[in-house]
Amino acid sequence: MADVVKVITLIGSSPESFAKAADAAVQEAAKTLRGITGAHVVSMSAKVESDRITEYRTTVDVAFALER
Amino acid sequence: MADVVKVITLIGSSPESFAKAADAAVQEAAKTLRGITGAHVVSMSAKVESDRITEYRTTVDVAFALER
Amino acid sequence: MADVVKVITLIGSSPESFAKAADAAVQEAAKTLRGITGAHVVSMSAKVESDRITEYRTTVDVAFALER
Amino acid sequence: MADVVKVITLIGSSPESFAKAADAAVQEAAKTLRGITGAHVVSMSAKVESDRITEYRTTVDVAFALER
Amino acid sequence: MADVVKVITLIGSSPESFAKAADAAVQEAAKTLRGITGAHVVSMSAKVESDRITEYRTTVDVAFALER
Amino acid sequence: MADVVKVITLIGSSPESFAKAADAAVQEAAKTLRGITGAHVVSMSAKVESDRITEYRTTVDVAFALER
Amino acid sequence: MADVVKVITLIGSSPESFAKAADAAVQEAAKTLRGITGAHVVSMSAKVESDRITEYRTTVDVAFALER
Amino acid sequence: MADVVKVITLIGSSPESFAKAADAAVQEAAKTLRGITGAHVVSMSAKVESDRITEYRTTVDVAFALER
Amino acid sequence: MADVVKVITLIGSSPESFAKAADAAVQEAAKTLRGITGAHVVSMSAKVESDRITEYRTTVDVAFALER
Amino acid sequence: MADVVKVITLIGSSPESFAKAADAAVQEAAKTLRGITGAHVVSMSAKVESDRITEYRTTVDVAFALER
Amino acid sequence: MADVVKVITLIGSSPESFAKAADAAVQEAAKTLRGITGAHVVSMSAKVESDRITEYRTTVDVAFALER
Amino acid sequence: MADVVKVITLIGSSPESFAKAADAAVQEAAKTLRGITGAHVVSMSAKVESDRITEYRTTVDVAFALER
Repeated sequence: MADVVKVITLIGSSPESFAKAADAAVQEAAKTLRGITGAHVVSMSAKVESDRITEYRTTVDVAFALER
Repeated sequence: MADVVKVITLIGSSPESFAKAADAAVQEAAKTLRGITGAHVVSMSAKVESDRITEYRTTVDVAFALER
Repeated sequence: MADVVKVITLIGSSPESFAKAADAAVQEAAKTLRGITGAHVVSMSAKVESDRITEYRTTVDVAFALER
Repeated sequence: MADVVKVITLIGSSPESFAKAADAAVQEAAKTLRGITGAHVVSMSAKVESDRITEYRTTVDVAFALER
Repeated sequence: MADVVKVITLIGSSPESFAKAADAAVQEAAKTLRGITGAHVVSMSAKVESDRITEYRTTVDVAFALER
Repeated sequence: MADVVKVITLIGSSPESFAKAADAAVQEAAKTLRGITGAHVVSMSAKVESDRITEYRTTVDVAFALER
Repeated sequence: MADVVKVITLIGSSPESFAKAADAAVQEAAKTLRGITGAHVVSMSAKVESDRITEYRTTVDVAFALER
Repeated sequence: MADVVKVITLIGSSPESFAKAADAAVQEAAKTLRGITGAHVVSMSAKVESDRITEYRTTVDVAFALER
Repeated sequence: MADVVKVITLIGSSPESFAKAADAAVQEAAKTLRGITGAHVVSMSAKVESDRITEYRTTVDVAFALER
Repeated sequence: MADVVKVITLIGSSPESFAKAADAAVQEAAKTLRGITGAHVVSMSAKVESDRITEYRTTVDVAFALER
Repeated sequence: MADVVKVITLIGSSPESFAKAADAAVQEAAKTLRGITGAHVVSMSAKVESDRITEYRTTVDVAFALER
Repeated sequence: MADVVKVITLIGSSPESFAKAADAAVQEAAKTLRGITGAHVVSMSAKVESDRITEYRTTVDVAFALER
């Protein structure tokens, strides 16, 4: 039987960009998971304070190989 | 690095309404998770018995902050 | 050959809730169909009169086993 | 030339149900708009506090005839 | 009756990134609206001139509380 | 900061075609808005009377530049 | 219990336009159904012969009230 | 007026594959309908028993020409 | 091995209708491709000048058999 | 309060078919989960090596009852 | 500047299964393209003759690295 | 007959951001195509190595006028 990959959904955030927000989610996932192979952007949003975006948020599906 | 939120998917059910079914899912999630911030409805369905809906089912994405 | 299920689309309505509107559709379907196994919500809308919603409408896909 | 309808998007909320949340949005719209003809549910979500849903939120597209 | 939020759609642009384009849309909205609570990315596109992207464009749904 | 475009949603109608229904929506929008740059079709439907379509309806997102 | 509407899916065709193709579907439906209230366009396609579109095809969901 | 095609939705099942499940739906439809021209896959799911998929299910839209 | 069809995406335009815009895309494709079997509408938009739609645009996926 | 079902996302793979790839994901899930009730196909893809598909991949949402 | 991948859309067919239909599309693409890295299933349909599916059709997006 | 635009799909990549990844795709397209008018983001993903995103990937539809 071939390998199986699991997908979890995280929302990362960053004061700078959607890319850094996605990276924040991946780095957080990497604290507890091994074998992360990639990430897929599901959606993007932003928190607004004082008439500006103060936090970019990227929802990502993070894929990692299940260890056997 | 900013906070990261995790999203899990649950299907709650209720004999009364889609709203109560969503709430059932959230309450179940809260038994083992802290820091739930919200829920988003993904889809709704129903079980039918004896020509009536006997169970409303709401699939929800439940978001909670990862503790650091 | 395994069983085959047919799916029909109905729009139920109710002055009270989306859940009751879905149930109204199922009950109407049950008048002429046997073997209904479930319903899936496709969309929801509402009729507005005198500045209030007077009718909730739920479009449901109703599934029933074809008799053999 | 035939009539033209305008569509605006509102998010209503209610401590009780998605249906009442949709109705809250319609009632708010009706304070400033005449000729509302209907509403279409775009999405549903919920605010969670103390391990329960405390606020149901329904995003609705509200349609109203432009006066000529 | 609970609070109602209105959602409007804007397309911001920036020569640098999709994030800055989203922020431009929010800042423009903030000139005439109070109570903006967040923004959701609907889609992204780009203007191309002389074989390069010269303008990033982000379509955002901007949400703000209706004052009562 | 680059230009910002606003998008509004209208439903035009015509006894003849979906194209004329879209144009009706644009012409109505142009009565009160300057700087319309384009329109995107969101959906199409039809009113039926006496076993025929009597009104074609096109929902369009109309984009116009915000004046600065 | 409120009224229930049934929705069926038809693909009409026309050598002239998508609008006439939708109308063809509605007229065919009207031969056997009473109480048609509207139609919603699901998708559009075309048959091509000799380097031209020779048939426009519109898939429509046709709604009609169930008689009680 | 050109030909009109009707579309119905069926869920076929098979212990072997999604393809055979789709074929089961088509064969069942063919028992009562003439003029089936094609099928389009809408979704796929599976029943699980004893830790294995025991039934593949394919939801198909089956198109057939209306006889005139 | 069975036949293989290729799909390309074109945006046709017409001052008259979405149907003619789709046909323009097909006719352009036919200048360089043989074996076009059909077209599927992906989306529709419009260019606006002087408060009217001056150009209807239809994005179509055009399918043609690969020669072997 | 009624039962709650949890949904996780897995990507199974197989050198033979999309059906076997889905089954591989379910079997892997069953190693650590009890009460799996079904699976829903989310998407399908394939790895290509030496000009052939060498691995079919099926992303499935696997549902299982939460034990109480 | 990093590598760029191109995506083309093909519809493969097979008398046996959706998997073989996808593989047929990939093999056809490989006749003229080098560097194919993967394929993503876009949709599935089937041709019906004599009350059975005689041809499974899988539309795939095939990705290949652009040579530099 | 009006102008026709062709749309191709490319996946650009960048170690820095989704915006630069989109621009990389456009610049690669410009090496062989004239008349590029714009780009539309289809999806975004990322390659992960050593617990970080090392490559941002943006899938874009690039539109260019067909020369006549």
